[in-house]
Amino acid sequence: MSRVVKLAVIPGDGIGPEVIAEALKVLDAATAGSDVTIDSTHFSLGAARFLETGDVLTDADLGSIKEHDAILLGAVGGVPGDPRLANANIERGLLLKLRFSLDHYVNLRPSVLYPGVPSPLAAPGDVDFVVVREGTEGPYVGNGGAIRQGTPHEVANEVSVNTAFGVERVVRHAFAVASARPRKKLTLVHKTNVLVFAGSLWQRTVNAVAAEFPDVTVDYLHVDAATIFLVTDPARFDVIVTDNLFGDILTDLAAAISGGIGLAASGNINPSGQFPSMFEPVHGSAPDIAGKQLADPTAAILSVALLLAHLGLEAAAENVNRAVVADIAARTGQPRATAAIGDAIVSTLSID
Amino acid sequence: MSRVVKLAVIPGDGIGPEVIAEALKVLDAATAGSDVTIDSTHFSLGAARFLETGDVLTDADLGSIKEHDAILLGAVGGVPGDPRLANANIERGLLLKLRFSLDHYVNLRPSVLYPGVPSPLAAPGDVDFVVVREGTEGPYVGNGGAIRQGTPHEVANEVSVNTAFGVERVVRHAFAVASARPRKKLTLVHKTNVLVFAGSLWQRTVNAVAAEFPDVTVDYLHVDAATIFLVTDPARFDVIVTDNLFGDILTDLAAAISGGIGLAASGNINPSGQFPSMFEPVHGSAPDIAGKQLADPTAAILSVALLLAHLGLEAAAENVNRAVVADIAARTGQPRATAAIGDAIVSTLSID
Ligand SMILES: CC(C)[C@H](C(=O)O)[C@@H](O)C(=O)O
Ligand SMILES: CC(C)[C@H](C(=O)O)[C@@H](O)C(=O)O
Repeated sequence: MSRVVKLAVIPGDGIGPEVIAEALKVLDAATAGSDVTIDSTHFSLGAARFLETGDVLTDADLGSIKEHDAILLGAVGGVPGDPRLANANIERGLLLKLRFSLDHYVNLRPSVLYPGVPSPLAAPGDVDFVVVREGTEGPYVGNGGAIRQGTPHEVANEVSVNTAFGVERVVRHAFAVASARPRKKLTLVHKTNVLVFAGSLWQRTVNAVAAEFPDVTVDYLHVDAATIFLVTDPARFDVIVTDNLFGDILTDLAAAISGGIGLAASGNINPSGQFPSMFEPVHGSAPDIAGKQLADPTAAILSVALLLAHLGLEAAAENVNRAVVADIAARTGQPRATAAIGDAIVSTLSID
Repeated sequence: MSRVVKLAVIPGDGIGPEVIAEALKVLDAATAGSDVTIDSTHFSLGAARFLETGDVLTDADLGSIKEHDAILLGAVGGVPGDPRLANANIERGLLLKLRFSLDHYVNLRPSVLYPGVPSPLAAPGDVDFVVVREGTEGPYVGNGGAIRQGTPHEVANEVSVNTAFGVERVVRHAFAVASARPRKKLTLVHKTNVLVFAGSLWQRTVNAVAAEFPDVTVDYLHVDAATIFLVTDPARFDVIVTDNLFGDILTDLAAAISGGIGLAASGNINPSGQFPSMFEPVHGSAPDIAGKQLADPTAAILSVALLLAHLGLEAAAENVNRAVVADIAARTGQPRATAAIGDAIVSTLSID
């Protein structure tokens, strides 16, 4: 029996289209000959589309994206400082709007230091952890405002909103992730000594849900201390659960220590399945190197592996991961074109 | 003509008293024979005092601290998880209360990788930058709250408050710091693409104040990207200006890459001089190693150098810095008692 997966593809801006082209090659190859057919629809969204049409993400776009089973996104965002984009916040209006509208409350960001990958750390040890970043609350809700803007009496506020509903569902998901991993360890990262109300909600929630997962070891770190351990002893981490902003910061640092954002994949997941989940590399659109075949498509390709796993296609996901690990291990330091890396990974897939 | 400096000393908890004992030794030696007399008053404040008396910081304490010219603080905070401290937030009630009541709007945190100090980075390069962290606003204002606490309908909010008054004064101070350094480079770190109201205020303020400092080069990084550069290219930083929470996170990471929090000094400064400024190591009270002469007093001693410089005693500050650098360079890896490190640094001071 054959299964059709309707995939919304958003190549986006800058290097987005180049890395997505390779990701799709790998996706095709990894599902070729299986009973799964990928039916892709491309959506032209991002800074380029905004400059052409003035639209960032229309209700029609969003409606039609929702008709899909999953989303693959490259990167969005124009050239920094482009005056024509001064009043368009592509990040908020497109990327965050998708995450919020599609209730992507689990932002899953694995960090693995693969054999052969240089780390900026002198002695990184065995880096293999995953950050479960909350995706729909916290300081990201857009609940800010200002009075007397542009005057010496301006006051600009930003509100971090945290709900029992929102915290509990992501914490429970993180415990489930931890419970399925060999080390079964969960670290809550927050700043409970300063952000006492939000921190208390997070800490009480972790304490309560822990009772349902007696096999999982739980600890806690303040966010500032967590950054220290990420560079002095990253091997101590297994699963980190944290809020939207702390997760944003920690996952860039995590990517940096495990080979750079060129290798960092992510999934914006709606575990209920009510809306399509979205897979994207952690890196941005890097307009300075766009169109030159200089970008590393590995993060986008690893995001395809996360997508396949999310679709329940575990064998195909493993196949892609293995091919990437093999390709990385064989790297010589000689620069390769974006397409050459994609081709090499495709050729390493074990198609049987 | 002799000058008397009234110093309020808060040794605090855990390793605080041990490191402060060494810091005071160095302070005495560095000012001996000069026309400056240090007149110290010890304040017993912290978790230990709270457990004895139930007080964290009384109005009388605060009033009498204000009568001093400067403050030297060790570290405050009890044993994590101590049930008797469950409802006492020593950090908020003591440390942050001092910073806010004494209007310490500049939290100055230098990061220097001294010769001979091992860094967790494989190739740290020339690390020598200073973070100017705002100290009286942002998410630290304590402007949070919760409804329906403990129920499935709990909502817990935290408000980051940012004012033109507060942002402008710290940004202007940071520009002055940058302008006095050889590289004259200022990096604003924020998250303007997400925290749009606060971010806009910070960015507009930096743009406006930049006009007064045409000699200073200005750039901008999102906080997530800043963590990447701190581990891949810390030499790119000269002066960072940022908000209270981002500054908290970045300075722990900065300390980690430049030899650890055992070496990280800080000044909580009220540049107007209306209230006494406070100098403290970035590290905490580390109750697990307290009383064993295991703590490195170097961060407290470098905080004394910041104190001396703040008092205008530049030569004495330089003398302490030089002695610390010499002591660090001579380290063999053999552990030394807290007091032995203090003594060694005192013996290296060039008293003339
Ligand atoms: C582009 C930006 C809005 C986004 C975020 O802050 O979440 C990015 O940094 C990320 O981590 O995916
Ligand atoms: C103890 C805590 C309140 C404090 C802070 O968050 O400012 C500490 O982490 C620091 O950086 O001095």
